[in-house]
Amino acid sequence: MAHRIAFIGFGGVGQGLADIIQNQSKELVEKEGLDLKVVAISDMMKGSLYHPDGLDLKIVKETLNSTGSLQSYPKEPGLIRGLDSMQTIKQSNADTIVEVTFTDVRTGQPAIDHCKAAFQARKNVVTTNKGPIALAYRELSQLAKINGVFFGFEGTVMSGTPALRMPLTTLAGNDISEIRGIFNGTSNYMLTRMEEGLSFQDALKEAQNLGFAEADPTNDIEGYDVRYKTVILANYVMGASLAVEEVACKGISHLTNQDIVDAKREGERWKLLGTLKKGKNGVTAAVGPERLPLTDPLATISGATNAITYECSLAGPITLSGAGAGIKETGFSLLIDLIHFHREKKAITT
Amino acid sequence: MAHRIAFIGFGGVGQGLADIIQNQSKELVEKEGLDLKVVAISDMMKGSLYHPDGLDLKIVKETLNSTGSLQSYPKEPGLIRGLDSMQTIKQSNADTIVEVTFTDVRTGQPAIDHCKAAFQARKNVVTTNKGPIALAYRELSQLAKINGVFFGFEGTVMSGTPALRMPLTTLAGNDISEIRGIFNGTSNYMLTRMEEGLSFQDALKEAQNLGFAEADPTNDIEGYDVRYKTVILANYVMGASLAVEEVACKGISHLTNQDIVDAKREGERWKLLGTLKKGKNGVTAAVGPERLPLTDPLATISGATNAITYECSLAGPITLSGAGAGIKETGFSLLIDLIHFHREKKAITT
Repeated sequence: MAHRIAFIGFGGVGQGLADIIQNQSKELVEKEGLDLKVVAISDMMKGSLYHPDGLDLKIVKETLNSTGSLQSYPKEPGLIRGLDSMQTIKQSNADTIVEVTFTDVRTGQPAIDHCKAAFQARKNVVTTNKGPIALAYRELSQLAKINGVFFGFEGTVMSGTPALRMPLTTLAGNDISEIRGIFNGTSNYMLTRMEEGLSFQDALKEAQNLGFAEADPTNDIEGYDVRYKTVILANYVMGASLAVEEVACKGISHLTNQDIVDAKREGERWKLLGTLKKGKNGVTAAVGPERLPLTDPLATISGATNAITYECSLAGPITLSGAGAGIKETGFSLLIDLIHFHREKKAITT
Repeated sequence: MAHRIAFIGFGGVGQGLADIIQNQSKELVEKEGLDLKVVAISDMMKGSLYHPDGLDLKIVKETLNSTGSLQSYPKEPGLIRGLDSMQTIKQSNADTIVEVTFTDVRTGQPAIDHCKAAFQARKNVVTTNKGPIALAYRELSQLAKINGVFFGFEGTVMSGTPALRMPLTTLAGNDISEIRGIFNGTSNYMLTRMEEGLSFQDALKEAQNLGFAEADPTNDIEGYDVRYKTVILANYVMGASLAVEEVACKGISHLTNQDIVDAKREGERWKLLGTLKKGKNGVTAAVGPERLPLTDPLATISGATNAITYECSLAGPITLSGAGAGIKETGFSLLIDLIHFHREKKAITT
């Protein structure tokens, strides 16, 4: 039976998943028994399409590439145009909503409302938006549970690198007492380039030119982006109930080339870290730059790469590193959520 | 319902798992619904105990610590002594055999015969012995499948660091075109110390004194240990059918301090790598020392740590590092196999 999905938002990440589905649909059926069918796409800017029997992704892509809009997708019997995101969530026959709207991470909207509406309509959600998980994880996961649906968000921390699912699956049985990581590629790239001699401003400009940093780089360089990811790790992996405001946060904008040279002279390197610790009074977390000895696995992570170290009671320290961003990588994070849900369901129903 | 297990072999690794079970039994029931009960232990040197209702692990440990043998474990109704490994596999009421005998990796025996007997008796097997997986994976996994039982061997590569299960679970959906890794802690420790100025012989002596290297270090320094692990990765993770003899193998015994200094001067570092590549003619693999630039994530892995990089078609290069040995870490690898089996079973039966 096909697994029907609807895209709410259809920017780079959504299109990244659509490309993967288009390229790998046969393999996904053969290897996983997962037959993904895109029935709807609703995007504020690009327009909206819904067909209960599925859209043709090749034509969707051609239409978008040639016109920038979904309006000229060809007419066909049963095709419905113009449903907004809420109508698509509530009225389409999708099993799963791929929530990849442009969302304000400070409020989590509109993604939070989309998640709620989907769960109430008994639809699964997979998302790469950090806001809903950092701000409303307990409420949303509870709502998903009550309605018997799946909530996947692997891509919210380290993109397709399985920072969220790995510790809870292949490291189950360990008590994870501490987590530390490099969760922002832009700032790590800048620190790497500053060690190579660039000034803060030049490193920032370069990161912007390479497309790593936004026009307003505040979230990256002041640690806010890392703070959201740290809260997600605390609440999901460590079972805490931390609010974003409870995490002290310092960025890298005060670091000078002299600081970096001083560290280097002593065999150390500055890294912007998110740090979580389990203690008597629950989980505490902080974000800030730290000087690490070069023997620390995190010290050697250079450029835009992300990395995370879990201190495990039985398996010892385990470090995972990989891309923390990228269209394909983040598209994959949505796919692995879908695969994971499908495998669980298959195990239950066969 | 309790999950009954029997230890075949009870050296360090087996005792490591027994300690974990003893320390965490309550948590495992609470968090995983996994109620592990040790019903039998059969060890060539230490003796053999079987009680269908379970053994007392605290008394087992005290008995072993004070006498080095299981003989003086106290008499009680229903206790059966002296079953050998095959009798324990066939006649005990264990659901799962923990196969941790002292096994010759070149022949895979007696572990291969133990696995076969267990599968034929419809018992699951978890093992940390490389021999059965490197030499007879296809046959054994087929036998397990036919008999509807589970075969777990996470600990055969990188101990409790999930090098085998992670790529097939949290990275599913990717085509993994290449795998490279540091799979032997002893040789990596020696290379690290040689870069710090020690001669090959002194580095080896130190590794032996620290308990990393065996009295006969051939397997570690000639790459044979890495070759077995490389074959396991090829056949399990990449779906190949490689035989051990098909993997070219070179160790580190020919490397001199001058080689290491030369590499260092050019910003590079020698590492003993297992390398696997998917090509037109299937998977090819090799073991040997390579000079890596310091920007390679594997170049920065120092001491006895292991690491592995998977080249993923969607998620990009992903590197995992952690312990590659250790009593507790390897004990954990058996536990995660048991947890994984239990979660799958729970999903199916609830």
